[in-house]
Formats: sequence, C-alpha cells, structure tokens
Amino acid sequence: MNDQTIPWSSLKGKDIPATIKLDPVIHRFTSPGCHILDIGCSAGNASIPLASQGFLVTGIDINPEVLQIARKSSLSCNSDQVSLFVRADATTLPFAPASFDIAIMQAFLTTITTKEGRARIIREACRVLQPGGYLYLADFGQTWHSKIYRERYIKDLPQTKEEGSIIAYDRETGEVSYIAHHFTEKELVFLLVENGFEIEFFKCDEFVTRTGNRVSGFVMVGRKEA
Amino acid sequence: MNDQTIPWSSLKGKDIPATIKLDPVIHRFTSPGCHILDIGCSAGNASIPLASQGFLVTGIDINPEVLQIARKSSLSCNSDQVSLFVRADATTLPFAPASFDIAIMQAFLTTITTKEGRARIIREACRVLQPGGYLYLADFGQTWHSKIYRERYIKDLPQTKEEGSIIAYDRETGEVSYIAHHFTEKELVFLLVENGFEIEFFKCDEFVTRTGNRVSGFVMVGRKEA
Repeated sequence: MNDQTIPWSSLKGKDIPATIKLDPVIHRFTSPGCHILDIGCSAGNASIPLASQGFLVTGIDINPEVLQIARKSSLSCNSDQVSLFVRADATTLPFAPASFDIAIMQAFLTTITTKEGRARIIREACRVLQPGGYLYLADFGQTWHSKIYRERYIKDLPQTKEEGSIIAYDRETGEVSYIAHHFTEKELVFLLVENGFEIEFFKCDEFVTRTGNRVSGFVMVGRKEA
Repeated sequence: MNDQTIPWSSLKGKDIPATIKLDPVIHRFTSPGCHILDIGCSAGNASIPLASQGFLVTGIDINPEVLQIARKSSLSCNSDQVSLFVRADATTLPFAPASFDIAIMQAFLTTITTKEGRARIIREACRVLQPGGYLYLADFGQTWHSKIYRERYIKDLPQTKEEGSIIAYDRETGEVSYIAHHFTEKELVFLLVENGFEIEFFKCDEFVTRTGNRVSGFVMVGRKEA
C-alpha cells in the first residue's frame, strides 16, 4: 500500500478523526501575533482556538469537506482573528519560504504511510518556516504494552509492510478506511533531525483514539536550524 | 562483549549506581505481609523502606560489598522487619518455586548485556513467584530525543553490538566501567510476555542517572500467568 490508496481527500469530513488536544507547551514557543501554519488542520480543532487567542493562523488540509466544516466553525465563533483555510498537499505547500513562525502537525504524520512521504512533508514544513522557527508535532507512539495494539501491529504487518502501522476499517462497510502509523521515539527524532530541525522539547504522553482506546504518544517541538 | 566482561561482582559497593526511586504504584500490587524479592537490590534502597513498611523482603545481589552496605543500613534503621540480603546470581536463584508474591527489579536489567541473559533472568523471577504474582520492573528507556544519548548509542554500537547500549567509563581511570542498556518499550514488553508474564501496568517516566542526566524510563508490572 502507499499514500495513494489512502483516501484522505475523499473521506467524509465528519469521519476524519481529530482527538489530540493541543499541549499548552506550545505557548513556550509562540509570540504575540506570530504566524502559525496548521498542517493537516482537519476541522480546525487547533487552528480556531489559536486564532481566537490572537495568532495569525493558516490551516491546510487535503480534504475539501473538512475545510468547509473548519471555515463554518471559524466564522461562527465570533473572534477578531479568522483563520484562513487552504486546500493544499503537505508535500508541496503553496507558500513562500520563511512564511511562518510556527508549524503544527497533530496526528497528521500518522496518516502518511511511507517514510519518504513523511520526510518530504517535514522538509516542506522546514522550508516555509523562518530560520529559528518551530515545528510542534504531536503524534501516536507504538503502544506495545497494550495487547490490542500489539496484536494489531503484528496482524497488519503483512499488509502495511511497516512495523507499528495498523489498518482502520469503516464501521459500516468493514472495508479498509485508512492506515495509521504509530511511531517509535527514534523514528520521530530522526525524521526531524535529518530534515532540518533540532529537538527543543520532547515528552511522552497518552492520547485517546477516535474509538476511545488509550494509546501512547509524543509531543515534540523542533527548531529549524538557523 | 558479554556478561562476563562486566565486573558487577567486583565493583566497589559505593560505585554501584542506584538512582531510580520506587514508584508508589507498587502498592496497588502489595498486600499486608507479602513476600517481596528485590533482584539486584544493591545497597537496599528499595528493600529497606519496603521492610520498614512491614513486608517480608529478601534482597539479592551478585556484589558482596554492596550487600554488606545493605545489611548495615538495614540493621541501623531500627524497624521491626529486617530484610534478608543474600548473595546470588539472578539467573539461578537459590529459592524454591512460588516462594514470593512480588519480585522487583530496578535498573537491574540495564546491566545485563545479552538478550538471552535477560530472558533467563525473567524466567527465573517467574519461577520463584506464586502463580498470579507480580514482577515490578523499572528501567531505562532509549532516549533518542537527547543529543547526548543519541550520539552515545551510535558511537558505542560497534563495541556494544546492541542498539541502545552505552559504555560507562570509570571517572578516575577512564577505563570501561560497565555497559548499560537502554530499552525500547517493545523490548521490555516482549521480554515479559515471552517469559511468563502479562502486562498489568505500564507507564513512561523520566529518571536521573548517577551523573545527573535525565533519561526516559519505563515502570511496568507484569503478572505471572496462573
């Protein structure tokens, strides 16, 4: 399987999972009025609150339906700042170099099913950040201590071809809905340090998936090398 | 290198690092008067407080000097219960099957430099536990987000032959003092589930090493299958 088999651009907007909350640590890296790019913004769960806090937020997503939901929520929340939601592919962002102070990715890399795809996306985020800018990244960790996940990693490996990846099925049709990758610390660290970032912050966390399972996760902040 | 090259049995007692505190979660698994075996007990930093709480504690270690320190501390702390400290090798414990309710290992497996050695030790702990008994395990995790550790894992790999292992040097002579292994979650989980335990508790933590570095760690409790 590869990126093309994952229909993120055609999934129904409401079916796109978005369960990771923004960690307050991000505010160690923000400054008043800074420009934030939310990569894989989904329905704006992070973008909209950040805009209402006064930041200049642009959200991008590949899925047009979910962007419509984000735009509607943004307009109805009556804040001074309205986020801009742009349909775009994270591997080729329609922005000039050094356009943003901070980029965020929440449970976004998990949806990218190739190492090359993830590396391209990190390099592209790096390109559009200011030198010294920050990438805030929160994503799922491999949860080997959970029998449920341990068994899924092993069972799904012949299809996913990547350890730590799992197949999510459509609740109604039973067909493959998408593949999600759960990371090791080593994977995420090298993804950042090999593609233009130094690690500024790191913590292990616990997230809840769309189906209510508890899963390990990481919150990281990388700093674009100047 | 193999286990034999690591002079744990001849290190000076005071030079044996013991920096991980016992996590209070252990008390979810203790019961009044239960028998606890502290494997790699060192100077008794866990054994002695547990004995003073009324548990029947036996500590084993391969190093005779550190056991003398443990015995003295134990006698001088004036509690009703005095721990028994026994010189023994964790791969061949001098106890009958089902002798203990709980076994604990704190930063002990990190000192065992072969996968086979670790598996033997876990099976041996399993043997001396009651069916349904618990293994409490706290140990170091691979800390890839730290530049210091990332570089040591890579630099020391040709000598240690195991990813995540690092070489600790004697502060005075500069010679190799011992090798320490830092684990992945997957390694520790399979070490337990392949050697007689189910995972009952798991958490990521942060420990401090003897030199004051912050390092990732895991606290786990396995339950011996009945």
